Amino acid sequence: MAELERFGVSMDHELLAAFDERIRQAGYRNRSEAIRDMVRDSLVAQEWQDPEAEVVGTVTIVYDHHARQLDERLTEMQHEHHAAIRCTTHVHLDAHNCVEVIVVSGAAKLVRHLAEALISVKGVKHGRLVTTTTGRSL
Amino acid sequence: MAELERFGVSMDHELLAAFDERIRQAGYRNRSEAIRDMVRDSLVAQEWQDPEAEVVGTVTIVYDHHARQLDERLTEMQHEHHAAIRCTTHVHLDAHNCVEVIVVSGAAKLVRHLAEALISVKGVKHGRLVTTTTGRSL
Amino acid sequence: MAELERFGVSMDHELLAAFDERIRQAGYRNRSEAIRDMVRDSLVAQEWQDPEAEVVGTVTIVYDHHARQLDERLTEMQHEHHAAIRCTTHVHLDAHNCVEVIVVSGAAKLVRHLAEALISVKGVKHGRLVTTTTGRSL
Amino acid sequence: MAELERFGVSMDHELLAAFDERIRQAGYRNRSEAIRDMVRDSLVAQEWQDPEAEVVGTVTIVYDHHARQLDERLTEMQHEHHAAIRCTTHVHLDAHNCVEVIVVSGAAKLVRHLAEALISVKGVKHGRLVTTTTGRSL
Repeated sequence: MAELERFGVSMDHELLAAFDERIRQAGYRNRSEAIRDMVRDSLVAQEWQDPEAEVVGTVTIVYDHHARQLDERLTEMQHEHHAAIRCTTHVHLDAHNCVEVIVVSGAAKLVRHLAEALISVKGVKHGRLVTTTTGRSL
Repeated sequence: MAELERFGVSMDHELLAAFDERIRQAGYRNRSEAIRDMVRDSLVAQEWQDPEAEVVGTVTIVYDHHARQLDERLTEMQHEHHAAIRCTTHVHLDAHNCVEVIVVSGAAKLVRHLAEALISVKGVKHGRLVTTTTGRSL
Repeated sequence: MAELERFGVSMDHELLAAFDERIRQAGYRNRSEAIRDMVRDSLVAQEWQDPEAEVVGTVTIVYDHHARQLDERLTEMQHEHHAAIRCTTHVHLDAHNCVEVIVVSGAAKLVRHLAEALISVKGVKHGRLVTTTTGRSL
Repeated sequence: MAELERFGVSMDHELLAAFDERIRQAGYRNRSEAIRDMVRDSLVAQEWQDPEAEVVGTVTIVYDHHARQLDERLTEMQHEHHAAIRCTTHVHLDAHNCVEVIVVSGAAKLVRHLAEALISVKGVKHGRLVTTTTGRSL
């Protein structure tokens, strides 16, 4: 387990009251956890600025599985990058629409490139990359 | 299949050249597909402004599975909301760290609330919500 | 002056070291100030979710002042909304391009609407809205 | 004046109807202008990924002008960077709060650094950087 440190933060009474209300709504049990999350979020954002940094991303795409050859194209692309792709999850939303989530790890620039390539496939209606972390430095 | 319409777009020669280079890098096969993606992206963003809109979200969280009772807490929360949660995918990143992706559907405000609740659990190092769509209106 | 409170935050040694490095780069003098900024940023983001909230926005637009009747159109729009527009600053970037910053205050929905209207004027090359605060509740 | 090109875009009838409604609300006069804005926005976003690219930014800060020595500190910082700072606009929001907008041009990394330095000054309640363009390549 990592060694814990403790430090003091000073804040105006009113700002602290607004913060307490905000984190209560978000479900935090205490201020430290909410502050640690904000700190980690800013560090992850910075991590992704280095194109060579080892990161984790998740790519969410929504598509109509009836679109001609879309499934084949997506599967083929994922096989080309099998070393970077950790897994793919597929949910049937209705008779036509699917959401697929692809978990990718590797250099930030590779993960971004792969996300763009998947999102740009014809027939993909909407796509987004989540830029997250291997968790090792947090 | 939906009925296709076709319309003309005018653009400066230089702007068009820069756009063509950008979409080539991103992997688009043609301008129409890139433009449709930008249009759909702006519509999805607007859809989420209505708290009652029926949407799809994916929540990505990274955590250390050794954190005391974290797995139990996350599983319990997901069971409380089983009607909204479509599925959960778990990837073991290394001996300590996991990434988990939870696919959620329902009213925008419920999906946001559930994402905040999952991300705020003590032990979750990083979390993000992707706001996407059921695909029905796109 | 507002009453100051002080509370303790606990953090892993490694996370705290990374945070200290990050805030040093950003120019913060101490952790409290960096944490207060993160807290205020999350509160401002939430404030804008209420369309009726009294907010401040700044609209930045870049345009070519040779574009036919653009200056007139922008000036006319700003006069229509003179009650909401606090001031406009104009910088001549080169022989063609200008950047203009319009400071707007009022209900969040009005500020957003006005920003969209200014950004959508033909000849405006790029536009962005900054969603900030009257500062009164912070 | 730049040479205009014209090209065709195909889109599902329903998607086009939703797009038309969206751009009508935003104030666009026609589809071409809305599409050009989306294209330019994606190009500006990419431009900022090169730390050496020549860009324009606007920094919006909100602060209480009673905060001890804040005005002096901000003025001093702006003088240190006078070559990059094009102008500063100041609005008195109420008896305590001011909004200040600083227009900065230069290398992307310098503009980001200067924005962080201004936003991190003690007493600045909220700050945001708009990443925009010199307009020369658009």
